Amino acid sequence: MEMELWFTEKQTPDLGITLRIKESLHTERTPYQDLALLDTVQFGRMLVLDGTVQTTERDEFVYHEMLTHVALFTHPEPKRVLVVGGGDGGAIREILKHPSVEKAELVEIDGAVVETSRKYLPEISCALDDARARVIIDDGVKYVREAHEKYDVIIVDSTDPVGPAVGLFAVEFYRSVFEALKDDGILVAQTESPFVNQNVLSHAYQAVASVFPITRLYLASIPTYPSGLWSFTMGSKRHDPLAVLSDRELNFETKYYTPEMGKACFALPRFVQDLIKQGR
Amino acid sequence: MEMELWFTEKQTPDLGITLRIKESLHTERTPYQDLALLDTVQFGRMLVLDGTVQTTERDEFVYHEMLTHVALFTHPEPKRVLVVGGGDGGAIREILKHPSVEKAELVEIDGAVVETSRKYLPEISCALDDARARVIIDDGVKYVREAHEKYDVIIVDSTDPVGPAVGLFAVEFYRSVFEALKDDGILVAQTESPFVNQNVLSHAYQAVASVFPITRLYLASIPTYPSGLWSFTMGSKRHDPLAVLSDRELNFETKYYTPEMGKACFALPRFVQDLIKQGR
Repeated sequence: MEMELWFTEKQTPDLGITLRIKESLHTERTPYQDLALLDTVQFGRMLVLDGTVQTTERDEFVYHEMLTHVALFTHPEPKRVLVVGGGDGGAIREILKHPSVEKAELVEIDGAVVETSRKYLPEISCALDDARARVIIDDGVKYVREAHEKYDVIIVDSTDPVGPAVGLFAVEFYRSVFEALKDDGILVAQTESPFVNQNVLSHAYQAVASVFPITRLYLASIPTYPSGLWSFTMGSKRHDPLAVLSDRELNFETKYYTPEMGKACFALPRFVQDLIKQGR
Repeated sequence: MEMELWFTEKQTPDLGITLRIKESLHTERTPYQDLALLDTVQFGRMLVLDGTVQTTERDEFVYHEMLTHVALFTHPEPKRVLVVGGGDGGAIREILKHPSVEKAELVEIDGAVVETSRKYLPEISCALDDARARVIIDDGVKYVREAHEKYDVIIVDSTDPVGPAVGLFAVEFYRSVFEALKDDGILVAQTESPFVNQNVLSHAYQAVASVFPITRLYLASIPTYPSGLWSFTMGSKRHDPLAVLSDRELNFETKYYTPEMGKACFALPRFVQDLIKQGR
């Protein structure tokens, strides 16, 4: 009998995903978290932080395309973009597909995430070496609070709201983001699963809505994340993604995003509408 | 230490979902398949056939609403509806929410599925006792082939295309469905996951498209199904779901379906568009 090696993430105390592993390529205890890089049969190489799947080669396109392009096509001409977290570089790769972008900064608290992604996930991290990209290893909360330039779009590509990412779900942080954005700037944050993280989603949405005049939730399907359905919350100072008719063509390749999807993703199931109505 | 009982479905040879179980309520070997009714902590009671999750109390609403209402609101006045498979009764429950429906038939090959659902899943099977519902225990392929009346909508609520459901994914079956539909009738079939069942989806779509003048694929998010994203293929003789502006109001409660979702669900990720373009 050949040995079978399986990775299991308990996504909740009562629900898990389990994936067959070809090989464990790297594990380390960083100053911030447990990091593992596993090669799965189903989804290719996979980054795991504190036991939680962050990204895989085969389904990362959904998360990274939907985290970035919805806002970048809502904004008329995004030039300066900041990613908070997202040390794997996938968000930066997608952002730099927009020719208007002059500078894309990544502020990641854990340098080991960037190093490991550079080494083992070249198709995700490739754009970190682009001349328009800048990688800063620092605390994102502090970096945004002390920002001395203004951004068109700020993207919060965080882990779950436990451990190092707690501060990225707080209303104080969204206020700092608001201040660090230009007068027509846009925030996008990943806000977890509407099926299994309802409190996080609801609180994050209310917090963004308490700071930004326009707040919109949208969804995308990511197989390796809990429940397979994931939410993103957009806070916008001026541009409403549902009202904007972008006349910029999609002139690069995507695997998930389409202009139609950029609108349809805002159509929410009834129970998700109810989730974000609570407490308003 | 308290014992922990976990159910694991290998959704592919390399990917699984695992769920903590409170109690196994019923297991039996029917003439067609292994049947189990488990009580899960995360999703409530769950019907399992041949080791594969069929439906759970907490997420069945997505599948049953999206399997039925998209077609029933595309058709101007659905009166006679047939469900092939779907012995749990969830599709019938949703169909009977439409006041125009005079008769909703269920043809299920395995009487044990109906009996077990009646006993353990009353919130799903409740409408099977409605005066407008009729339950037939028979082979759906044969029943449709020999149908002596014509339907407005036929819904294929099948298991995966292995075991008893193989014939429900064959072009000959879709031809029988076409014959059993009125001149403006509509077929909807569940056609698996675009992430992990790409061949099944692609073949089913092509088979429906070879029989019906209008063929449309749409998607919904179902946490307990492989990848969390599920596809449905609609074959229609006359009414195009994308062109129809239903003036019937949604005058009953839903948890997933909304009129906006009834359109937005047809916006396909780029890779799914590519999947159904193959071979055309």
